[in-house]
Amino acid sequence: MAEDAVKVAPEVYKVVLENDQVRVLEARLAPGAKTDVHGHPALVAIMLESAKVRFSESGGETTELELPAGQPMYLPATEHTSENTGDSELHGYLVELKR
Amino acid sequence: MAEDAVKVAPEVYKVVLENDQVRVLEARLAPGAKTDVHGHPALVAIMLESAKVRFSESGGETTELELPAGQPMYLPATEHTSENTGDSELHGYLVELKR
Repeated sequence: MAEDAVKVAPEVYKVVLENDQVRVLEARLAPGAKTDVHGHPALVAIMLESAKVRFSESGGETTELELPAGQPMYLPATEHTSENTGDSELHGYLVELKR
Repeated sequence: MAEDAVKVAPEVYKVVLENDQVRVLEARLAPGAKTDVHGHPALVAIMLESAKVRFSESGGETTELELPAGQPMYLPATEHTSENTGDSELHGYLVELKR
């Protein structure tokens, strides 16, 4: 199991709300920046600004995603590096689902 | 149990994402507008614009809330009417938690 996103990249992921059901992270990733490998449970991502990211799974698979501003997206549990491949800051919220 | 928000006020709440873990609603409520009584499970609200709302619980309790833009807020399961008491449209997302 990969390490917690907040431990691996505290400059990128900040906990803004947490209880027994959810943990909500504010994410900020500069253009061109890339995190080390970290894990997330299943989550709903809502970006405040449009962003482009590349996720590289530990198994080797790479996914390029466009995240439009203000359009919620569900992402299943994963373990990956995150890279901002756009030319503007990635800024948004990740609603991580506990169970 | 109150009726589902989407059934009671389909002009206000639209389902933009749903699976077995979450249902995400886009909410738009005009200034001064008020919904009929409806229910929500526990949810995380993220407003895209700052908004002011008054929730009136079925039991009679009234809550006035300021919802700052882009600041996630957890709301426990409830049954209420929602009124936009601000002077701008309420616009944001409700991440309803199943289970």
